[in-house]
Amino acid sequence: MKIAILTIFPEMFESFLSVSILGRARTEGLMTVEPTDIRPYSVQKHKNTDDYPFGGGAGMVMTAQPIVDAVAAVRARGYAGPCLYMSPRGKPLTQEKVRSLAGQNSLILLCGHYEGVDQRALELAVDEEISLGDFVLTGGELAAMAVVDAVARLVPGVLGSSESAQDESFSEGLLEYPQYTRPRLYQGLSVPEVLLNGNHAEIAAWRRKQALAATLARRPDLFAAAPMTDKERAETLADAKADDAEQ
Amino acid sequence: MKIAILTIFPEMFESFLSVSILGRARTEGLMTVEPTDIRPYSVQKHKNTDDYPFGGGAGMVMTAQPIVDAVAAVRARGYAGPCLYMSPRGKPLTQEKVRSLAGQNSLILLCGHYEGVDQRALELAVDEEISLGDFVLTGGELAAMAVVDAVARLVPGVLGSSESAQDESFSEGLLEYPQYTRPRLYQGLSVPEVLLNGNHAEIAAWRRKQALAATLARRPDLFAAAPMTDKERAETLADAKADDAEQ
Repeated sequence: MKIAILTIFPEMFESFLSVSILGRARTEGLMTVEPTDIRPYSVQKHKNTDDYPFGGGAGMVMTAQPIVDAVAAVRARGYAGPCLYMSPRGKPLTQEKVRSLAGQNSLILLCGHYEGVDQRALELAVDEEISLGDFVLTGGELAAMAVVDAVARLVPGVLGSSESAQDESFSEGLLEYPQYTRPRLYQGLSVPEVLLNGNHAEIAAWRRKQALAATLARRPDLFAAAPMTDKERAETLADAKADDAEQ
Repeated sequence: MKIAILTIFPEMFESFLSVSILGRARTEGLMTVEPTDIRPYSVQKHKNTDDYPFGGGAGMVMTAQPIVDAVAAVRARGYAGPCLYMSPRGKPLTQEKVRSLAGQNSLILLCGHYEGVDQRALELAVDEEISLGDFVLTGGELAAMAVVDAVARLVPGVLGSSESAQDESFSEGLLEYPQYTRPRLYQGLSVPEVLLNGNHAEIAAWRRKQALAATLARRPDLFAAAPMTDKERAETLADAKADDAEQ
């Protein structure tokens, strides 16, 4: 798996790529991640990569030429996979999308800045626009890092024994159950008894119930869409109603 | 505005904080961002910060004590604002939330790793859980960077003249209109004529129409909720239907 990141701030990726899980994945040759500076591809004398927007408005717009040429150069180096533009106009990233990206041999991630990118660059060089969420970042770099990180943890061998590649919660459409570790008592708060009794069926049932309750309380949108039995749905709703009545 | 970031990978923030807009904001004293290592707060002999989950399961869980003590230490240094835990179990970050965070004098961002954090640390030290979206990252660090970046660009003076702090699109509940810059003709693709004629009312009307059409096509959820006139809604739907029929 190799990922090229086209950016005007390649140095922003240095610590992200050298630390933690990504650092290890690259050292062990499990992944190639190449931040690539767009600027040298500009045919302008001063290597400009932005200009004023036609029609007026605040801020600058990134010009098409350096981006289109940078994508072509990366393609010539064997990147045949999709080129994704990180943009709040894109489709929100989901774990399902992450899984499909992790199945590619290569990805090209394009990071915009300022007021965005000339629309023609998107038409000529970009396959898809991806958004991290409904908020505005100063550029696409952090969104690209999030894609690299989310994809990397699904690449076989990248996660160590401390981590777990299971993403049960989102694959079941639910939020995670709460976790507890030692000590059993901390500042007057105990670990739930069921987690200490070694009865795996009871533990699994408790965790499932907690995941259902958390999803209903925090993300009714996910709860409505998540696969579950009619009994589970009815019980979770009844429990939430009883909790409300108590308060 | 000051932000403390509690993490077991403080070095992951180095290039993010020294490059681009954040680098400038910190150099000019507009913002303080302090990555703080959780590890030294561990009372364990080997400064451990994680342990096996009670009830079993893959991966490790971060223990409560080092986190609770690290938050207390940061609070003692004058961080009175909310402590946010970056977690896929949290409320999805929105631009509205970013605006409310930007109004705080200080923030504490807690980054989890592995299979998450002992629930008791969240009960004792965390005010709110924030999610970047419905995907799984190896840790909360990139989510924390996204919060810092999104908040920073709303801090007065942080954005330079190339950038624009206007987030019209999301404040109007719509995606941005497409942008164009020089040259007028690139690889056979022209800039839309309306953007070249200098008629500001026509340009504003074209951009509004483009924003409405893009939002309907890409994010019907936002389109349904966005404020607009009945006429705008009807026309956008009719145009989309006509486009479908053409294809």
